Amino acid sequence: MASTTSPLGPVLIVGTGLIGTSIGLALRRAGVEVLLDDLIPGQAIVARELGAGELLGQGSRPTLVVVSVPPRHAAETMARVSREFPEAVITDVTSVKAAVLSKAVSLGADPARLVGGHPMAGREVSGATAARVDLLDDRLWILTPGQASASSVALVARLVEACGASLVEMSAEEHDRAVALVSHAPQLLSSVLAGELVEADDAYVRVAGQGLRDMTRIAASDDQLWTDILTTNSGPVSEVLDSIIARLLAARDSLASAGSGRDPSNIGDVLREGSIGQRRIPGKHGGTAASYESVAVMLADSPGELARLFAAAGDEGINTEDVRIEHLLGRPSGLVEVFVSPDRGEALRIALRARGFDVRA
Amino acid sequence: MASTTSPLGPVLIVGTGLIGTSIGLALRRAGVEVLLDDLIPGQAIVARELGAGELLGQGSRPTLVVVSVPPRHAAETMARVSREFPEAVITDVTSVKAAVLSKAVSLGADPARLVGGHPMAGREVSGATAARVDLLDDRLWILTPGQASASSVALVARLVEACGASLVEMSAEEHDRAVALVSHAPQLLSSVLAGELVEADDAYVRVAGQGLRDMTRIAASDDQLWTDILTTNSGPVSEVLDSIIARLLAARDSLASAGSGRDPSNIGDVLREGSIGQRRIPGKHGGTAASYESVAVMLADSPGELARLFAAAGDEGINTEDVRIEHLLGRPSGLVEVFVSPDRGEALRIALRARGFDVRA
Repeated sequence: MASTTSPLGPVLIVGTGLIGTSIGLALRRAGVEVLLDDLIPGQAIVARELGAGELLGQGSRPTLVVVSVPPRHAAETMARVSREFPEAVITDVTSVKAAVLSKAVSLGADPARLVGGHPMAGREVSGATAARVDLLDDRLWILTPGQASASSVALVARLVEACGASLVEMSAEEHDRAVALVSHAPQLLSSVLAGELVEADDAYVRVAGQGLRDMTRIAASDDQLWTDILTTNSGPVSEVLDSIIARLLAARDSLASAGSGRDPSNIGDVLREGSIGQRRIPGKHGGTAASYESVAVMLADSPGELARLFAAAGDEGINTEDVRIEHLLGRPSGLVEVFVSPDRGEALRIALRARGFDVRA
Repeated sequence: MASTTSPLGPVLIVGTGLIGTSIGLALRRAGVEVLLDDLIPGQAIVARELGAGELLGQGSRPTLVVVSVPPRHAAETMARVSREFPEAVITDVTSVKAAVLSKAVSLGADPARLVGGHPMAGREVSGATAARVDLLDDRLWILTPGQASASSVALVARLVEACGASLVEMSAEEHDRAVALVSHAPQLLSSVLAGELVEADDAYVRVAGQGLRDMTRIAASDDQLWTDILTTNSGPVSEVLDSIIARLLAARDSLASAGSGRDPSNIGDVLREGSIGQRRIPGKHGGTAASYESVAVMLADSPGELARLFAAAGDEGINTEDVRIEHLLGRPSGLVEVFVSPDRGEALRIALRARGFDVRA
């Protein structure tokens, strides 16, 4: 293992977009020396002006290179920096790992110095100017070490820590199966479902409610980025799709049986399994969604009403874990669900009723 | 057409659960005479105590009967009341129409007096005590007249109006296709997707983010109710599923081609179509989701912070159309997205920055 008392940097960031620049800002916050490089020199200059580091100069010898370029350029960039900086450890931030890393090695990247990385930085706006010093704080950052040496992995682990993120280690194949399951296949499913609406009657679409809105929200995502991601991770995504398709076909057949009066037990199984699977998804702060209590309030949809509600919660020292607004049609009023710790639900109801709010059962 | 000056009632409500009792309350608010009946006498008494009407007595002659019993009992109940009250118009509130109504007629209900109904009352908690006088205000209420006489339809239209809802007329078949598309098939899709998580590695599920949470929220729904709904509407749901399955298969094949280096154009098409379909879904007040501007604010997750944010918006007279909270992992802070009219976004950003909020790009 590398000594943790030796300096982490200089860290070279290749690709100063949102993620690269945010990593630079976080490393500067931690006192690490950062060098910046981008195919578009103006981008690197913007990142420098934002305080993400200094421009890469001739003869610089980074200890660590972070490749944070778009997915389709990641492999060749990793191979290039592996040749240019033969002593540096190399990592990347690409959201697909196995195919990208094996391509990088086939193009000449040194596998002993190559540690795959994927910071789960959530919602993304693009470009250096959108970068934030705390973008990676408390996020999961997956590392896929592959054949990297222990000292290479230890150095990248220090990068993750310096950025304020939580390290998760898995193989590149595990990573790709995980994101195929929880992100890539759901993206495609959302798009396919939303695509059903393209040719639908206006009268049908008009009947849509919150359930369909939630299920199709991510269908609005960037189609070019997602084409890249899905095609690069085609194997694991196809596997999840195969399982989903097989279970949809079984459900469809079971519905056909129901039409003919036979036992529709499979439908009940599908629904019950879904309910069990849904409860496994972690909620805020690593808890589960079911661990919060919902307090429903019908309130006037006018300026200040939400403020009055949250002020009431704040006055009582009750923390609001989540909020959901259900919209009524055509009139300025709405049902708001406020999620709080289970031990605070009743206190919030009492406080809100005392202030004249219409608290629902 | 019936004269609108003649009294609407007495209206008999059979089944005084959430919907039936709410209809009673709304009708009483409109000054309409209401009679209550339930298989469980105590339920009807609770509804009466809540002010939803009087108990059904011997010799009562309702002009209109609203059958608001669980889906599996709806057809036989409609047939029974059609015989018991040979002059009354009959409607129901069941969320599947064609199969239920034709079964009611086959059991003896008079089709000239039978007007199918489905109030889209959104999120449901059960039982008379959960009923609200404004549950149906501004909701869509679909009527499927079938072979009902014009005077029967006019009477039920007056019921819808008296309850404060907006009438939408379509055939029972159209209704069933509409809800199959926007509600029933999405429910099954959500359950199937969430079901993929049942056997998944903890490490995979841990990586899940907001996208998967949104897509699987409705998978937590009541499995018995939904087994009833899906099997009763099996034909239209199967049709939507067939289309979804066919498009998922095409996407899967396209991904396989991508793996072999061939053109992955279908994936791009799927994603673009999804984006177009997503934009068709109506947002709040009948507008589209795309018609709001998002203002992103990183704020401390402590009591009073949300209140301070909404107070700032309220002070500026800016109405908050929707709110989304993105959760970070393990630490008390969060990214909040506030949705406002596009012409108010910049004003809100300025107001929030002036108050020291960390407004994001």
